[in-house]
Amino acid sequence: MNTTSLNTVAVVGCGLVGSGWALVFARAGATVRIYDGDAALRARAPERIRQMLQDMQGAGLVQEVDAALARITVCDTLADAVGPADYIQESVLERVDVKQAVCAEIGAAMRPDAICGSSSSGIPASAFTEALARRSRFLVAHPVNPPHLVPLVELVPAPWTDPEILPVLRDAMQRWGQAPIVVKAEIEGFILNRLQGALLNEAWALYEAGLASAADIDLTVSQGLGLRWAFMGPFETIDLNAPGGIADYSARLAPLYHNIAVSRADPQPWSPAAIRAAEAERREILPADQLQQRTDWRNRRLMALVAHLRSQPK
Amino acid sequence: MNTTSLNTVAVVGCGLVGSGWALVFARAGATVRIYDGDAALRARAPERIRQMLQDMQGAGLVQEVDAALARITVCDTLADAVGPADYIQESVLERVDVKQAVCAEIGAAMRPDAICGSSSSGIPASAFTEALARRSRFLVAHPVNPPHLVPLVELVPAPWTDPEILPVLRDAMQRWGQAPIVVKAEIEGFILNRLQGALLNEAWALYEAGLASAADIDLTVSQGLGLRWAFMGPFETIDLNAPGGIADYSARLAPLYHNIAVSRADPQPWSPAAIRAAEAERREILPADQLQQRTDWRNRRLMALVAHLRSQPK
Repeated sequence: MNTTSLNTVAVVGCGLVGSGWALVFARAGATVRIYDGDAALRARAPERIRQMLQDMQGAGLVQEVDAALARITVCDTLADAVGPADYIQESVLERVDVKQAVCAEIGAAMRPDAICGSSSSGIPASAFTEALARRSRFLVAHPVNPPHLVPLVELVPAPWTDPEILPVLRDAMQRWGQAPIVVKAEIEGFILNRLQGALLNEAWALYEAGLASAADIDLTVSQGLGLRWAFMGPFETIDLNAPGGIADYSARLAPLYHNIAVSRADPQPWSPAAIRAAEAERREILPADQLQQRTDWRNRRLMALVAHLRSQPK
Repeated sequence: MNTTSLNTVAVVGCGLVGSGWALVFARAGATVRIYDGDAALRARAPERIRQMLQDMQGAGLVQEVDAALARITVCDTLADAVGPADYIQESVLERVDVKQAVCAEIGAAMRPDAICGSSSSGIPASAFTEALARRSRFLVAHPVNPPHLVPLVELVPAPWTDPEILPVLRDAMQRWGQAPIVVKAEIEGFILNRLQGALLNEAWALYEAGLASAADIDLTVSQGLGLRWAFMGPFETIDLNAPGGIADYSARLAPLYHNIAVSRADPQPWSPAAIRAAEAERREILPADQLQQRTDWRNRRLMALVAHLRSQPK
């Protein structure tokens, strides 16, 4: 068996994230075996995935709904899902005791040469795989929600993860249409949430100081910074923002950015008063009973944006 | 004269930013008078603006190139450009002595009821307007480069700016097709560069610690965070990322983000070694002699993205 092909994939956990993963693998042509401890949830999964596939078909992102669905088998036991798998995507509740228990089951049922990636968004693999006999086959493969619309996946090895897994899984993720990155060691928040957190922490501090409304801070990103960041990262952005590239930009602007960092060297938690004020401002703009409708709008916008970006020259 | 209509606009400084501004005003139907102290630069401006308009026409963003160009008059003196203007956009070199001298000239030539916004990206208006007789009519109106493609404009008053100007200029900027925000007091970096700086500072720290390559950090944004930020700001993003909205999200995740801030409470400058390493990595990906070509690609991508975003339901 050649694990570099990773043709048979198991998904353990059929919530929103697990269902999105099953779609990703099936869309790419893999044989997909799904399982959830909740029998009702796993029985409903194919219909949920069909709906997501149809939405994507409407946005021009998927050709064949039925063919993709036909590749997905709902399994009645975890061992039945995991046993034949080359790759297992664990997508259960984000709680260390739950992940420990499920990964112990996966470890007992998986082939010795299979790989298991956890969808954990914050708990490092070392916190729930240390005691496993096959712990060298486990790592974090953290997606963005929903994984079938936002391609980034953070591959984060535990100290005992076999390093040979990383290039194999990176290649497979790319083949499945995702955008994997390798985080070289475990760090709180991995890369994505640390970058998001840095921007959010500054946004909250500005908001709390009364320097701008939440709506204006949102516009600064959606009508300013975010337009470039939708197709270029921060390093490429600054590389193109000075005639001599990134070193030239750094020579001009690093002192300003260091001053900004120093001005926040005594970081305060997001304050309850600021959270109440932002909640009030947001509920003025978007009443609570329209949150779901707006989330659906966001997903349609994401699909249209992904279709647009795919149509553009790299 | 009713300044709320701001129909006649002067642009002082015909570099890249000033030319972009002239395009913005002319595209929106304003009468535009442009001036630059460099006679050759101001003479070349109409041809440069024609080229930008034609590129935008190709992307479906502008209908009439000739009609927009016909609204632009090149003036031989600053007083001739500024005298009849309802609004003046100062776009000269980012140096405090240069801005002081030019704003003194503008102040002497402008109508008492006109408004002058400076394109300053970092120097606050208080640093170059304090001594002016008409200083209450001056503020910063900081665009993103290039202003005709990225709509955000930061309106930043000096302590002596007449507060009645803010709603007038905000309305006018919206009518001109820009996305103005109000920064309620002068703060280093204003809002946009503080948010960008917070993310860049974290990106550099991760890079310097060897946790990911610059290319992988770029992917984290361009294939992850940036997809939402192209049409929603950070507050709306988290408002839709927990079932109960922004307060619910904050209750779950504020402690994680505070930990991240605390881990960076001893901020270090971007280090020369990290800058050299990132420069080397970028020049592997993009040789120095292709920077201009890639910047042209970025501008085409921005135009296509703006056209896409305009086509979508709000």
